[in-house]
Amino acid sequence: MKSLAVAIVVLALSLVTSAQNKPRARDLGIPFDGTPGPLNAITDVRGVEVGLATIVRGEGALKPGAGPVRTGITVIFPRGKESADPVFAAWFSQNGNGEMTGTTWIDEGGFMEGPVFITNTHSVGVVRDAAIAWSVKAGKMFQPWSLPVVAETYDGSLNDINGFHVKPEHVAQAIESAAAGRVAEGNVGGGTGMICYEFKCGTGTASRKLTAPQGAYTVGVLVQANHGRRGELRIAGAPVGQEMPVPAVARGGALPPSTEEQGSIIIIVATDAPLLPHQLERVARRATMGLARTGATSGNGSGDIFLAFSTANDGVAAAPREIHVNMLSNSRISALFSATVEATEEAIINALVGAETMTGVDGRKVEAIPHARVQELMKKYGR
Amino acid sequence: MKSLAVAIVVLALSLVTSAQNKPRARDLGIPFDGTPGPLNAITDVRGVEVGLATIVRGEGALKPGAGPVRTGITVIFPRGKESADPVFAAWFSQNGNGEMTGTTWIDEGGFMEGPVFITNTHSVGVVRDAAIAWSVKAGKMFQPWSLPVVAETYDGSLNDINGFHVKPEHVAQAIESAAAGRVAEGNVGGGTGMICYEFKCGTGTASRKLTAPQGAYTVGVLVQANHGRRGELRIAGAPVGQEMPVPAVARGGALPPSTEEQGSIIIIVATDAPLLPHQLERVARRATMGLARTGATSGNGSGDIFLAFSTANDGVAAAPREIHVNMLSNSRISALFSATVEATEEAIINALVGAETMTGVDGRKVEAIPHARVQELMKKYGR
Amino acid sequence: MKSLAVAIVVLALSLVTSAQNKPRARDLGIPFDGTPGPLNAITDVRGVEVGLATIVRGEGALKPGAGPVRTGITVIFPRGKESADPVFAAWFSQNGNGEMTGTTWIDEGGFMEGPVFITNTHSVGVVRDAAIAWSVKAGKMFQPWSLPVVAETYDGSLNDINGFHVKPEHVAQAIESAAAGRVAEGNVGGGTGMICYEFKCGTGTASRKLTAPQGAYTVGVLVQANHGRRGELRIAGAPVGQEMPVPAVARGGALPPSTEEQGSIIIIVATDAPLLPHQLERVARRATMGLARTGATSGNGSGDIFLAFSTANDGVAAAPREIHVNMLSNSRISALFSATVEATEEAIINALVGAETMTGVDGRKVEAIPHARVQELMKKYGR
Amino acid sequence: MKSLAVAIVVLALSLVTSAQNKPRARDLGIPFDGTPGPLNAITDVRGVEVGLATIVRGEGALKPGAGPVRTGITVIFPRGKESADPVFAAWFSQNGNGEMTGTTWIDEGGFMEGPVFITNTHSVGVVRDAAIAWSVKAGKMFQPWSLPVVAETYDGSLNDINGFHVKPEHVAQAIESAAAGRVAEGNVGGGTGMICYEFKCGTGTASRKLTAPQGAYTVGVLVQANHGRRGELRIAGAPVGQEMPVPAVARGGALPPSTEEQGSIIIIVATDAPLLPHQLERVARRATMGLARTGATSGNGSGDIFLAFSTANDGVAAAPREIHVNMLSNSRISALFSATVEATEEAIINALVGAETMTGVDGRKVEAIPHARVQELMKKYGR
Repeated sequence: MKSLAVAIVVLALSLVTSAQNKPRARDLGIPFDGTPGPLNAITDVRGVEVGLATIVRGEGALKPGAGPVRTGITVIFPRGKESADPVFAAWFSQNGNGEMTGTTWIDEGGFMEGPVFITNTHSVGVVRDAAIAWSVKAGKMFQPWSLPVVAETYDGSLNDINGFHVKPEHVAQAIESAAAGRVAEGNVGGGTGMICYEFKCGTGTASRKLTAPQGAYTVGVLVQANHGRRGELRIAGAPVGQEMPVPAVARGGALPPSTEEQGSIIIIVATDAPLLPHQLERVARRATMGLARTGATSGNGSGDIFLAFSTANDGVAAAPREIHVNMLSNSRISALFSATVEATEEAIINALVGAETMTGVDGRKVEAIPHARVQELMKKYGR
Repeated sequence: MKSLAVAIVVLALSLVTSAQNKPRARDLGIPFDGTPGPLNAITDVRGVEVGLATIVRGEGALKPGAGPVRTGITVIFPRGKESADPVFAAWFSQNGNGEMTGTTWIDEGGFMEGPVFITNTHSVGVVRDAAIAWSVKAGKMFQPWSLPVVAETYDGSLNDINGFHVKPEHVAQAIESAAAGRVAEGNVGGGTGMICYEFKCGTGTASRKLTAPQGAYTVGVLVQANHGRRGELRIAGAPVGQEMPVPAVARGGALPPSTEEQGSIIIIVATDAPLLPHQLERVARRATMGLARTGATSGNGSGDIFLAFSTANDGVAAAPREIHVNMLSNSRISALFSATVEATEEAIINALVGAETMTGVDGRKVEAIPHARVQELMKKYGR
Repeated sequence: MKSLAVAIVVLALSLVTSAQNKPRARDLGIPFDGTPGPLNAITDVRGVEVGLATIVRGEGALKPGAGPVRTGITVIFPRGKESADPVFAAWFSQNGNGEMTGTTWIDEGGFMEGPVFITNTHSVGVVRDAAIAWSVKAGKMFQPWSLPVVAETYDGSLNDINGFHVKPEHVAQAIESAAAGRVAEGNVGGGTGMICYEFKCGTGTASRKLTAPQGAYTVGVLVQANHGRRGELRIAGAPVGQEMPVPAVARGGALPPSTEEQGSIIIIVATDAPLLPHQLERVARRATMGLARTGATSGNGSGDIFLAFSTANDGVAAAPREIHVNMLSNSRISALFSATVEATEEAIINALVGAETMTGVDGRKVEAIPHARVQELMKKYGR
Repeated sequence: MKSLAVAIVVLALSLVTSAQNKPRARDLGIPFDGTPGPLNAITDVRGVEVGLATIVRGEGALKPGAGPVRTGITVIFPRGKESADPVFAAWFSQNGNGEMTGTTWIDEGGFMEGPVFITNTHSVGVVRDAAIAWSVKAGKMFQPWSLPVVAETYDGSLNDINGFHVKPEHVAQAIESAAAGRVAEGNVGGGTGMICYEFKCGTGTASRKLTAPQGAYTVGVLVQANHGRRGELRIAGAPVGQEMPVPAVARGGALPPSTEEQGSIIIIVATDAPLLPHQLERVARRATMGLARTGATSGNGSGDIFLAFSTANDGVAAAPREIHVNMLSNSRISALFSATVEATEEAIINALVGAETMTGVDGRKVEAIPHARVQELMKKYGR
């Protein structure tokens, strides 16, 4: 019965049809720099698989332990879930009021040995240990011990976060659902209960494809966006947030205007360019610049933590002695920096555009950004 | 029944009489620089409380999920377990093949908001989330979300680590047992299944008391020591490890000589000196030098991660606007650096001297360092 | 004769009348977020003094050692040039293809002990040692040794940089000229030969004044801007750079379009808010976000290095033992982050607007951004 | 006349016969772990060349600008002075009260583009700019601009440091003298006026050769040692410093006992193992552990800054696009860590043993460590 209940409440949405028909930021006519890959998603980087477990259950007053539940897990496998081959990786924290486990070993060794998970702040632990159990069972341990990478943002405005509703079986479900192809956006996976710029937000993705002279590399970005105050929001440079202020008097369960950053954003950057760890750290640092283009200033309460990995150089981590690795010249790296900035900007706007109005704990209602109004504002600002 | 079973297997050893009668390093005549505090323990820093949950159960062949179990949890409360007042803190990684959660927020905000836990590598997650649940329940959340500090070393040589035997109730038990006063050493708490320099090892502690002209501050150190190869071990500068090589042919369940570092060490440094976060980072970095005095070279497999906190400046974190904090002049800080090096060195040797021979999974037996032989070697090397 | 020649070519422009009559970005109607201080300059932070030495000499073909010379020095004294009292400081590198000396000691000790200088890349050494000589002579050494802070950007496109035309006497001149009050912008001081977004650029400044409920603190920013490719330039969010592409065929000595970032930006953030070193590092990191708002992506060739200091807490560094320092609560810091982002954005646009077309080595001519065209574009994009 | 005078006072000692006949630490019977290379010097790493300019002039009372002069420059070319091919490099600061220019670009790009210089604290600038001038003239610029690496320790106890006696011609001289082969130790090059553990100290070097199964790599270390208080000194683990306290009453120009760390140590680690930048940072961090074995605790006044580079992977930096680089598996790196610790320990003791009693400014006399007494103490402590 328990597993049936879980099956009912967990919706693995990665390939749900409806998700495919929602407009994305470009569909609203919002202009972005650069050229996206075919899916305009992190999965444009060959090998990358994304899995989602979305947990939505209950309504009404908050009863800790009972709900309502608006949360989930996102998992990203750099080389697909069948591979146990580590990738070169690096990370950066623009504002560290958050958690990403496993980063100390990434810094030291230069590799990420497994997938990266993103969930809610209070469920990092259960996901981490369940990831180890899965690795052991699946025979995917790279060392005798495992130091999984699990990041988070806070969904306590909509979700019974202190009810600890994420369970090991959701980790398994997210892993099982992992696939290449289109990635659902908005209220899905770890992004289920997220809010950005005081609109409903969540998971978003985008990609950039470099030209042949630039090396034809792909950069893919996935964000779990939960950050920002309304007045800061810029879309394609236009001061959209200032045009749509949060009503001073909250009505119908809406949240009042925020005086202080309460959110966070996790940004994952994937590329097939052959970058070494110290070069990936440079890429991770550019995520800040894409975030800044949407207006954010990374308030004190924000956990703005970014990870970059490269799917090139397979088989390197397990080499017994010396091994040849492929390295992109620093003289060619700038195009990857620009691509990261551009794809990050678009992934955030995709998270915003892809989200749908949600009512959560205590009937609290967070509105999605109105698409038509965004289109009007694009016109007003010449975009 | 279950809770009874747990009660039986969990031994909160922090005040057990037998622990107090074991010789410590100084009792063997080993010389150390500097002057310890009254307990020669981290609890010489006023306010610091240490709690332990030791989980020992079963014998014989490894049956994952069934045992044998040789593990535990150590918890350190900077201001005692009743306080929810954050402390200034900082951390440093000498070799990051390990985990210490919560460090990104420590770096950013400068505070550690709760206690620090140390457990086995694969139980970091359960301890982290249980720590949040405890904080919520106890009303000790500093922000709406919690980012607990949980560190680890690997006990899989003696313990059924993939059986995940650490449970939320052990976290509660460790917390409940937290107390000032003497600290048990050796096979207790998170240190239960640890091995250092290929001897049985575990939890160790020491302290230094500065002179009045130096400010009369106290520095206390607690280590969970699980690092090092035999030949490296130096005690009071003498090449003790080279005098006691690991037998090339392992007998009676003993481990064969290690060709490669497999271990780790977590070092926690407490002080009542009024140090700011950037000054505490300097202190944390000195733990490396105490570790080095015992011969370690921090091999690739080692998670050598250090945390320093100051119990001065209470009430600062919750200040609504500006607040006066007390700061020690940089011109007075060197004595604290020396004290940290000295107390770290002694805490490691205390962990070694305090441990007792243990037999764990598959009948594997790890010998404690023979005290009499150490005393002989001290004489041989003029110490 | 030599000193006369130097006197002629060195123009200390900090209070030159003409500088005061040039339009600044706001005068062109460009909108920015936030409220500036009275001067909209780094000198709005009480105590801060800025000095400039501008070295312009010769025309025509490059003869290394002879010229033409288009370079200079900018110096910023946090507490005025009469004070030898260190300030809390911190720094951050968004892309480290550049130099800022003295940062290792800032990281370690938390203080900047003297002023910060900015000059051209190949004159950092002469400025550094001359700064020491000045400190010794002026009796302003804080330790027996001195580790001056000297940053740079590259002016070799217009200046005979390998002629090493910056001399110790220019350091003295910059120091002597240091004053509170209005700060000259554009082709002055270290900014003399700078180019940003492929327009003539240079020195720029701006400030933000927080509201009384926010603490009434001031944040001031000074930039030496030498970065960016044309297509990236955004002013107030509008894609200005894309509207004014660099002609593919360079005419009349103009530079051809850049395919690769060649520049850099130094950003200095001053505040009177009582921030500790680890909090100032957070502020320095926000400079990236202001830079990003102008379109930059920090290419490989860029030295994007930022420094933040606080003029609060005077007399702290020399305290013999413990001392009370004032600290702003983290809960109040976000407004300072926003102010930093906003003032950085405006300082960069001020550097661009304040610069004038310059012809340098080999008759190379770099055009200033045409003000009228910017105003047209602001209208086109609804700003 | 001036150039003649300079020629007389600058002694390029790298191949002076007398230097070869001085005993080194091993010659006194001091035991060290590991196996050195043929020269037991950094030049055992193939390609490495070391140059020295030693400037000794004048006696008696300090007259700033006139002398006495006891200073110099050391330069290390990773691939020899004819090569302009950058090496992978990384650095670490154990205590940053010091300067090493160029490190921000090393962090970012992963390469050191030229040699590393070490001189006195107040001559870093002149050496830096002269190094650029030499690079320009010699056609060895890797980018259009140059960001030289120049480190320092303070020799103001013996040298007229504020007389700024290091001149561009000394940089040329050090470069010209650079050679493979034996390296002079003690009072030579940048080490001329240095003091460590309150004995005369200076330049020291050592190396380790790994076994064939370990990869047969070489690790070479060169130190400029100027750190430590007497009581801390440990040689081969024996408390040598405690046995030879500094007389409380200084006689005959001797320095009184130090109450506070005034010194610094620069440690350069070279290897031919194919390490990537993030792996070299790990190596640099191990220098701390070698330093700690000699007793140091890195006081507040110390600039303990370490650099590691690899001579493998030649031709990589200039690659136009992708290039294969050779990388050592992390699983093989621990032996290099141990070698670094061991060679650092020995290089420091070599600097101490190689130095000779020196009288400097104001007749101040610093004694060399008495070799016979060291040998007695080795016996006393069973070594």
